[in-house]
Amino acid sequence: MKQDNRTDRIILGIDPGTNVMGYGVIHIKGTDAKLICMDILSFKKSPTHTIKLKSIFEETTRIIEQYRPDEVALEAPFFGKNVQSMLKLGRAQGISMAAALHRNLPVFEYSPKKIKQSITGKGTSSKEQVALMLQRILAFESLPNLLDATDALAVAMCHYFQNRMPSGNKADKKYNSWETFVSNNPGKVSGL
Amino acid sequence: MKQDNRTDRIILGIDPGTNVMGYGVIHIKGTDAKLICMDILSFKKSPTHTIKLKSIFEETTRIIEQYRPDEVALEAPFFGKNVQSMLKLGRAQGISMAAALHRNLPVFEYSPKKIKQSITGKGTSSKEQVALMLQRILAFESLPNLLDATDALAVAMCHYFQNRMPSGNKADKKYNSWETFVSNNPGKVSGL
Repeated sequence: MKQDNRTDRIILGIDPGTNVMGYGVIHIKGTDAKLICMDILSFKKSPTHTIKLKSIFEETTRIIEQYRPDEVALEAPFFGKNVQSMLKLGRAQGISMAAALHRNLPVFEYSPKKIKQSITGKGTSSKEQVALMLQRILAFESLPNLLDATDALAVAMCHYFQNRMPSGNKADKKYNSWETFVSNNPGKVSGL
Repeated sequence: MKQDNRTDRIILGIDPGTNVMGYGVIHIKGTDAKLICMDILSFKKSPTHTIKLKSIFEETTRIIEQYRPDEVALEAPFFGKNVQSMLKLGRAQGISMAAALHRNLPVFEYSPKKIKQSITGKGTSSKEQVALMLQRILAFESLPNLLDATDALAVAMCHYFQNRMPSGNKADKKYNSWETFVSNNPGKVSGL
């Protein structure tokens, strides 16, 4: 079983959405980051919202089983245009998080602004600018058609950048694994 | 294994929330509805939002394993005061739904107004009025301290009432089980 060694670990980045979910996987070895894969999953053809949710859970679980990440980083916007879209986004976010936490993986959340800032230095960069910078850093040949994949890769890289800084992790929200939390906080977990 | 017999089935009602989750279980036998249990789970002491989400998933799974419902009905408000609260509520809703769908249970959503209307005849009834009517219908002795339990019981009863009507189910959103859907719609499920 892989140990939680900071110099050799796999990070899964997820950009959850109700129609398209992006994901990117990187391998950190020493101070080098290497691209393992990035892709998108489309749920647009799912006939109902709930079928989408079911797919998000199953697919996140499948990706975790396939790539066995040590940490999961999510792009999590906290603001949106209207309550309807935020409810749907919340469902998609929550399900991806549950699939990861259910596997006892630590989950980290980063705002879109923070992700862009950590990749390009500017919180207002476009998706294309972020993608081009990632291409340069990770040296992959062609950009994917859908930028949801590079968005997800950006979350994973953002998480890596935050962790390699001497001041430690600067996630917007940081959660240790469930087991670690419970063992460190006996009696603090309600509803169990 | 229990068959999907409309005259003998167990319905789990859930009122998902970020701080408190209510649940109620009823047993339908012929035209009679019998209370099996109702209770609440509090996540207020969970130190982070994600620990709450993890608990919601684990607890919904536990309740499903314990009571083995044939159908799950959720109270699902589609409107809220602000995008922040709707994002959190969306996460809680989505996770409860994922736990049920993951077990291949059909999930039904009802709006708070529809639930009240089906129990008391009025969509504007108070929680107390709904609780008192449920007490009369199901003949239980004392009301629980927290009305989130009776709210959840109301969802289960609402689902039962909708189904026993000759015109069939009138859920706001109705989803068949995953397996049934996939077998009936080959090729329609994306991302698998």
